[in-house]
Amino acid sequence: MTQPMTLGQLAETLGAVLQGAAAQPITGLATLQEAGPGQLSFLANPQYRKYLETTQAGAVLLKAADAEGFSGNALIVADPYLAYARISHLFDPKPRAVAGIHPSAVVADDAQVHASASIGPFAVIESGAQIGPGVTVGAHCFIGARSVVGEGGWLAPRVTLYHDVTIGKRVVIQSGAVIGGEGFGFANEKGVWRKIAQIGGVTVGDDVEIGVNTAVDRGALSDTRIDDGAKLDNQIQIAHNVHVGAHTAMAACVGISGSTRIGKHCTIAGGVGMVGHIDVCDNVFVSGMTMVTRSITEPGAYSSGTAMQPLGDWRKSAARIRQLDDMAKRLQQLEKRVDTVTSEGQPASDG
Amino acid sequence: MTQPMTLGQLAETLGAVLQGAAAQPITGLATLQEAGPGQLSFLANPQYRKYLETTQAGAVLLKAADAEGFSGNALIVADPYLAYARISHLFDPKPRAVAGIHPSAVVADDAQVHASASIGPFAVIESGAQIGPGVTVGAHCFIGARSVVGEGGWLAPRVTLYHDVTIGKRVVIQSGAVIGGEGFGFANEKGVWRKIAQIGGVTVGDDVEIGVNTAVDRGALSDTRIDDGAKLDNQIQIAHNVHVGAHTAMAACVGISGSTRIGKHCTIAGGVGMVGHIDVCDNVFVSGMTMVTRSITEPGAYSSGTAMQPLGDWRKSAARIRQLDDMAKRLQQLEKRVDTVTSEGQPASDG
Amino acid sequence: MTQPMTLGQLAETLGAVLQGAAAQPITGLATLQEAGPGQLSFLANPQYRKYLETTQAGAVLLKAADAEGFSGNALIVADPYLAYARISHLFDPKPRAVAGIHPSAVVADDAQVHASASIGPFAVIESGAQIGPGVTVGAHCFIGARSVVGEGGWLAPRVTLYHDVTIGKRVVIQSGAVIGGEGFGFANEKGVWRKIAQIGGVTVGDDVEIGVNTAVDRGALSDTRIDDGAKLDNQIQIAHNVHVGAHTAMAACVGISGSTRIGKHCTIAGGVGMVGHIDVCDNVFVSGMTMVTRSITEPGAYSSGTAMQPLGDWRKSAARIRQLDDMAKRLQQLEKRVDTVTSEGQPASDG
Repeated sequence: MTQPMTLGQLAETLGAVLQGAAAQPITGLATLQEAGPGQLSFLANPQYRKYLETTQAGAVLLKAADAEGFSGNALIVADPYLAYARISHLFDPKPRAVAGIHPSAVVADDAQVHASASIGPFAVIESGAQIGPGVTVGAHCFIGARSVVGEGGWLAPRVTLYHDVTIGKRVVIQSGAVIGGEGFGFANEKGVWRKIAQIGGVTVGDDVEIGVNTAVDRGALSDTRIDDGAKLDNQIQIAHNVHVGAHTAMAACVGISGSTRIGKHCTIAGGVGMVGHIDVCDNVFVSGMTMVTRSITEPGAYSSGTAMQPLGDWRKSAARIRQLDDMAKRLQQLEKRVDTVTSEGQPASDG
Repeated sequence: MTQPMTLGQLAETLGAVLQGAAAQPITGLATLQEAGPGQLSFLANPQYRKYLETTQAGAVLLKAADAEGFSGNALIVADPYLAYARISHLFDPKPRAVAGIHPSAVVADDAQVHASASIGPFAVIESGAQIGPGVTVGAHCFIGARSVVGEGGWLAPRVTLYHDVTIGKRVVIQSGAVIGGEGFGFANEKGVWRKIAQIGGVTVGDDVEIGVNTAVDRGALSDTRIDDGAKLDNQIQIAHNVHVGAHTAMAACVGISGSTRIGKHCTIAGGVGMVGHIDVCDNVFVSGMTMVTRSITEPGAYSSGTAMQPLGDWRKSAARIRQLDDMAKRLQQLEKRVDTVTSEGQPASDG
Repeated sequence: MTQPMTLGQLAETLGAVLQGAAAQPITGLATLQEAGPGQLSFLANPQYRKYLETTQAGAVLLKAADAEGFSGNALIVADPYLAYARISHLFDPKPRAVAGIHPSAVVADDAQVHASASIGPFAVIESGAQIGPGVTVGAHCFIGARSVVGEGGWLAPRVTLYHDVTIGKRVVIQSGAVIGGEGFGFANEKGVWRKIAQIGGVTVGDDVEIGVNTAVDRGALSDTRIDDGAKLDNQIQIAHNVHVGAHTAMAACVGISGSTRIGKHCTIAGGVGMVGHIDVCDNVFVSGMTMVTRSITEPGAYSSGTAMQPLGDWRKSAARIRQLDDMAKRLQQLEKRVDTVTSEGQPASDG
């Protein structure tokens, strides 16, 4: 499905120093443990160095230091993981879409589809939408009225953009993602919820990736925003009016409540939840399943939750946590009593 | 995309007291900070009163008290947020579907589609299904056999109703939602899971909203139920046999396990999980990411989890929680020892 | 929609001992409390035995011990719940698909679709895909290039398989599930995320079930694997390179991070999160919403989190947890001070 390349060609592509047989054909990529003689591997994590000696790989991407003493074929690069990332695309079996509109697609008369774009079977492109050059719109995609997909975008099958959603260049959106759904906006009138129309849209920057079944709601009044280079994994919920800063990455199952703003270059681990209307500054790391209940104003790492225990031990801990306030008071009281007893002795701690 | 209205017309629509220029045209809505001279804004939250003086809004929805001393155009109402909710629909750019069945849709011969309903491209309507007056069925929707969508419903593109799902009037369902999926029912036979057919359906009341990619499973024997006025946000999981009471709202990413019953007028914040087979009474608030492991019989607010800390501090807390049972025992022992030491002195606390 | 059967026929089907009227027609299934005279019920959970006396059911599946003294019709079996599971399929109103390819489906010339398979409206089957005997591919499904669905599989409407996904026999996949999405693989280059092509696929064993809107990502290099008999509920996230062992069940909203391996016969409750690159051994139970942050090497039950409390109490507990490290130190200090005071007295605990 992909063309074999020679090691020499790969060295040239990467600007790597070749150590070994330039004519060696490379047909794919694999880990050091699993690679066969026709496959290229890489050593990025030092803990896998032990596999270097016994690997069957046809060649290995290595740092100069690791290449010393390695007798196999090697491509020497400054950052083997990054080199692997770059070269991985050469061996990607993902089918390439051909330009043109599938005859089954329903495209509004006044939608603009660039001649180099590919529109898959049963796609629907509504009035005033714009599909840029080189864009792939997969089967069963829905592109709402006036929505825009910028140059080089790739939409997997079954992506839904509601109306008035603007997607930048080279954006990747996986199946089932929904951009521009109506945010959860209701006013309560004597116990009954009255819907608030969500009249804002969504603006997604360049080079963003949005994962499988992820939802990004439209803004209530102005746009929800996902800035350049942000990467959202699967099953994420981005509520209305949220702003995700550039180059911030979120792992799967994260939920961000309405109007919260997240800075640039943050890393939000899987399952994190954030309440609404808070600000998280740049360069923050939040660990998995943390509940973020207040703004974060200092870069750094943050966590909540408790460590896993065997169920029996956990039951004791959980019961004790409910007694904690009482324990704290008893501890304080005890300190006073001991102070009294030892009042003639050494002074109590200032703590 | 939407018609401008005059301030006078809006005052009439809302039954508001107009303070200012009736002829002022209003073309949209925006926050106090962002509104321009053609836009209407509102003051609902007292903490935004500071923006009232400097707002560029063409007019503002205000309570009578806030309107005193405000020199701009105002619409005076009892509840500005509710007035905003009502008026928001006048400025909604969401395309209105036209009545009729798109020629690409596949509609079973014995399905009943009201003449005023709109059926989008590539929709599939199966045998015995009923689509009521004024209903919008978006592109790529699937309406299973014998399922019913009541008058005035709005189904975004790509909504799936399995068979035997009954949806009330004026229900809104966002893209990717799946109603009537087969619940997680298995009987274990010597370590192997045997599937139990899910022969119940789903009954959804009037004025319900169901969010993006939310799943409501069908009942194992009788119907899963979502009662009138309930609002379910995105990415929610409602398992088989669950009953959600009227006017209860759930924020995104909530998961409700099988056969749990939730009362009326509850508010379940984002990321909450509930175990199965419990009852939650009316008027309960559950805070974000709480794990509800037992029935709740008293109205009120409930929480679980720990507060976020910087990672280093959190590690200490988490380690200490695992020592809590030991700490509690040591505290108790210490109290006894101090009692012994001070047995001639003041009596220990009853606590 | 389903044919009524007589109690005698059901007894024969199940190999049950019939106590009562063989000619009694049975038209459906219901709980003991809800069943009417034409319905069969079952007693599996001893806590429902109280309903046995007053049930209106036409017949009840019972253990021999429970049948003694029961005057109604009964089918006596070793495991009533398992018998109910088996018989439930006879009363399933789910429409049966007819063999053949719907004229609207788009099937690649070189795809292989068995003559006994059913391909629904607007399904897309890409180049080199194989659909086995008796398979149902629902409306709006997308079967990517070279993907395989084994004999007897049932894909609900709107299931997406990317390219190079291999599904075993008798696999059930619910609506909105996405198998083979591109995993979250990025290399960081000076703060900018560079995409890594995900060139592995997904291998799903026989008798697996995958729930509504669940995502199983393709492998980065080799395949993500879900082994025989595993059952995944709704809204689950399985990241790239994960391996789920045979007959493991996961409830809804679970998230498994990349390269984690889970053993056989595990039960993972709803909302559990697992970090990446860990191993969980066979026969592990993880309770709801637990965060699994390290490998589990011993079978057993594991938990994290805190027990739910009324909000006011919870606030105190949460505040105290943040003081825990300090409390622990003060407790230790106090122990030393009391030791000093009582040094002439009884010895301190070894704890």
